[in-house]
Amino acid sequence: MNTKLAKESYTEMNELVLPNDTNTFGNLMGGRLLYWMDICAAMAAQKHSNSPVVTVSVDNVSFKRSIKLGEVVTIQAQVTRAFSTSMEVRMEIFAQNLPEGTREKSNEAYYTFVAINKDNQPTKVPELIPETTLEHELYERASQRRALRLILSGKIKPEDAIELKNIVNAALKD
Amino acid sequence: MNTKLAKESYTEMNELVLPNDTNTFGNLMGGRLLYWMDICAAMAAQKHSNSPVVTVSVDNVSFKRSIKLGEVVTIQAQVTRAFSTSMEVRMEIFAQNLPEGTREKSNEAYYTFVAINKDNQPTKVPELIPETTLEHELYERASQRRALRLILSGKIKPEDAIELKNIVNAALKD
Amino acid sequence: MNTKLAKESYTEMNELVLPNDTNTFGNLMGGRLLYWMDICAAMAAQKHSNSPVVTVSVDNVSFKRSIKLGEVVTIQAQVTRAFSTSMEVRMEIFAQNLPEGTREKSNEAYYTFVAINKDNQPTKVPELIPETTLEHELYERASQRRALRLILSGKIKPEDAIELKNIVNAALKD
Amino acid sequence: MNTKLAKESYTEMNELVLPNDTNTFGNLMGGRLLYWMDICAAMAAQKHSNSPVVTVSVDNVSFKRSIKLGEVVTIQAQVTRAFSTSMEVRMEIFAQNLPEGTREKSNEAYYTFVAINKDNQPTKVPELIPETTLEHELYERASQRRALRLILSGKIKPEDAIELKNIVNAALKD
Amino acid sequence: MNTKLAKESYTEMNELVLPNDTNTFGNLMGGRLLYWMDICAAMAAQKHSNSPVVTVSVDNVSFKRSIKLGEVVTIQAQVTRAFSTSMEVRMEIFAQNLPEGTREKSNEAYYTFVAINKDNQPTKVPELIPETTLEHELYERASQRRALRLILSGKIKPEDAIELKNIVNAALKD
Amino acid sequence: MNTKLAKESYTEMNELVLPNDTNTFGNLMGGRLLYWMDICAAMAAQKHSNSPVVTVSVDNVSFKRSIKLGEVVTIQAQVTRAFSTSMEVRMEIFAQNLPEGTREKSNEAYYTFVAINKDNQPTKVPELIPETTLEHELYERASQRRALRLILSGKIKPEDAIELKNIVNAALKD
Repeated sequence: MNTKLAKESYTEMNELVLPNDTNTFGNLMGGRLLYWMDICAAMAAQKHSNSPVVTVSVDNVSFKRSIKLGEVVTIQAQVTRAFSTSMEVRMEIFAQNLPEGTREKSNEAYYTFVAINKDNQPTKVPELIPETTLEHELYERASQRRALRLILSGKIKPEDAIELKNIVNAALKD
Repeated sequence: MNTKLAKESYTEMNELVLPNDTNTFGNLMGGRLLYWMDICAAMAAQKHSNSPVVTVSVDNVSFKRSIKLGEVVTIQAQVTRAFSTSMEVRMEIFAQNLPEGTREKSNEAYYTFVAINKDNQPTKVPELIPETTLEHELYERASQRRALRLILSGKIKPEDAIELKNIVNAALKD
Repeated sequence: MNTKLAKESYTEMNELVLPNDTNTFGNLMGGRLLYWMDICAAMAAQKHSNSPVVTVSVDNVSFKRSIKLGEVVTIQAQVTRAFSTSMEVRMEIFAQNLPEGTREKSNEAYYTFVAINKDNQPTKVPELIPETTLEHELYERASQRRALRLILSGKIKPEDAIELKNIVNAALKD
Repeated sequence: MNTKLAKESYTEMNELVLPNDTNTFGNLMGGRLLYWMDICAAMAAQKHSNSPVVTVSVDNVSFKRSIKLGEVVTIQAQVTRAFSTSMEVRMEIFAQNLPEGTREKSNEAYYTFVAINKDNQPTKVPELIPETTLEHELYERASQRRALRLILSGKIKPEDAIELKNIVNAALKD
Repeated sequence: MNTKLAKESYTEMNELVLPNDTNTFGNLMGGRLLYWMDICAAMAAQKHSNSPVVTVSVDNVSFKRSIKLGEVVTIQAQVTRAFSTSMEVRMEIFAQNLPEGTREKSNEAYYTFVAINKDNQPTKVPELIPETTLEHELYERASQRRALRLILSGKIKPEDAIELKNIVNAALKD
Repeated sequence: MNTKLAKESYTEMNELVLPNDTNTFGNLMGGRLLYWMDICAAMAAQKHSNSPVVTVSVDNVSFKRSIKLGEVVTIQAQVTRAFSTSMEVRMEIFAQNLPEGTREKSNEAYYTFVAINKDNQPTKVPELIPETTLEHELYERASQRRALRLILSGKIKPEDAIELKNIVNAALKD
């Protein structure tokens, strides 16, 4: 199987917050941001896999800063690691008030995708090669986040997880 | 402070999956579902708090079944517990193929909201009173999920968390 | 032919009024409500018929209360009676201001649908069995409303309608 | 009070049927058409009244022909008569398949609007002057349709309506 | 090949400016207007060619007047000339404030379309017959605008253009 | 007045082509692309000016390649030159088929914006400093394109333009 560099999947999306994206206070609704994040992360996963992809999970997302009508949401997505047919994508989200020239980090998140073939079945994806220090760290920790994800979604039972304590402890330190 | 019953916040949303909600395979995009879930859960949180609310976090969500164009997504949301100014909302999501008469559970999720006043500041919400066995269980576990959420979002450090092991073990058993 | 209970078709939709749904006064546009009502009623008709459906008529709808930006529109739909290949769906519409805890009836309406098969042709639907007193009343009056509808749409001529006076008088007393 | 000619309110809207406007059979959803009709009729009512307007009722609408994805919907709206603060708008709807050069009448409908002032209160509108034979006929019958509408919406009781039989008979002959 | 009159392609579109169409100042975004213009002009080109069409170019468009939330945009499109498989469409755009009864010209523009057949290949279109003085002028100048368009898009080199100076001079005098 | 580097305004937008963005052949509609281009270019102009901006003109755009449903549109925008209160933004547009790993240039375009202050009046913008060879070329040619634009929009008469021939000849060679 061929391999790909982490940076080859890098995808950036910039969206202007329009009236229908906001609540009655003029703040971007969390659900709209989750929607944009899904599209941006899916593009990164498609770049890595050269396949259509489907979202299989979203990790805990917390919204630390409200984003206002007229601001620009910048989403930067990159695949952190590939696992057979699935890929973890990490995103950093920034809110820019362009007239004021401000740019603040809003939050970050991990979405997971599975690559599918023409019969709608999971299909192998290239192995991911990390290069930078950050990419290496994200790559290493990806298996811990994955274990936590599988436990939280009930796909594996905590008591069946070997090294559970290590995994949880490590995951919780992220 | 006054109190409210859990069931008073119950909110059901039914959405028809239209072409623009789907990817090129005719499957509902995960991000669109996250968007609808946010609106439905926000309505439940508003019913409980009688205040405008803002989304502060989304717990791990996994998508177990693809939902197709023309199917109906049913989202059932109810507040599980109130904590001073915040509320945890649990949702169950079902996909119905009405022509075929099928109805399958797709997934479930927890979103957390904060109630805000006219100055955009957090404001107290009524205490929640659980009644049924399920409501009691969800109420009890809510503080464990909350601790895990605060740890995962970096708001509290694992080493500062008293009873961490119990919390994690319990949370992981959910 | 099999039968179905009236309540089996019950469908509830809750929609948050967003900026693009409103006019320059911040009131929900009537056409947007008619659009949501069509989707909600179609879901009820699909539940009863287990077929795709197409809208064939909308009875007189009057809007008694303006609905504001940020309010929640609740639509409750249920099939009242089935006629060979068509179904009459009745809806009650409520407007809720969740922060203020108010819930007022906005209006009610009847939409009619025809079930279609894979060749896009009308197809038989199950007979509807009313249970409650209200369901029985709605069932009985459905044939009168249907006669009025056919007359108003020019499908039958008033002078050809036997019992016209009774029908009209009854319909007008609804 | 000043007056206006019927034709001064004439408004035509042409909309291309896009994927999200259609059901899974590729047919325009009835609710989307009702939405466009509301906007088109509101423009006609605004032209006549030179005021913002709100929809107060929709008369019985029947859909006689399905409209397909990619076709063009033409809506022609014109005020038929003004009553103090309200206006009745009649629409004719056509479906055009431009590549095939066909144009067929789909249906017609009457929507009623009230003009409002800056305090959101009903405000007087100019009297309407019909010119053509059709405009005169529509003008004459408008009071009969209005009576039927008020009866159907429960605003006046049939037993209180003077000349009820005449009104109903005339309305039913339309 | 058959012919068609210029006026047979006339198409008018009226769109209400809704919140999501505007920037934070409540002005219609230029891109939304360009989108509506494309749909309106495409309808005119389809009427002339009785074929599906694709946009191949947009001439310089300048926006002379800002259009506000709640105003109505009127777009009047008509084919000016056909060239084998392509058609030039001219549009005039007006902004109406219906409550105030004003109607001002906003701008005008030329879009060009190619007719395509079922294999997605360019296909011949009827010759256009101008009738009025304006239609004749627009028809005559169309070949000059077309030459300028081909030069500006790099499809023909200025040094290869016979009569370049005349063409440019004429085009610039439009 | 302060100055800014050309690259400081660089903005990239990636949009997934969804069903409602396409015509009945599954090709992205030209108008939708023009809409996205307007938003992307406006973000670049806002970055340069730190002001809200309004679109004042769009130069000739030609569409050289059809973009399909499910492809990703990448728009790269950067300000080329500032003129007192206005800015010219150049965009390059690419279409990516991520599953197939292809990326082709679709077209390029120039949009012009004016910066506005809180009173909706034009306001000064920083001077732009080009750095790379391409940025210098684009900067130099900007005044020629601007002259052509003003002539084409009728704001200055060709006979009043000093150096017209040079300008036109240069512009035509772009």
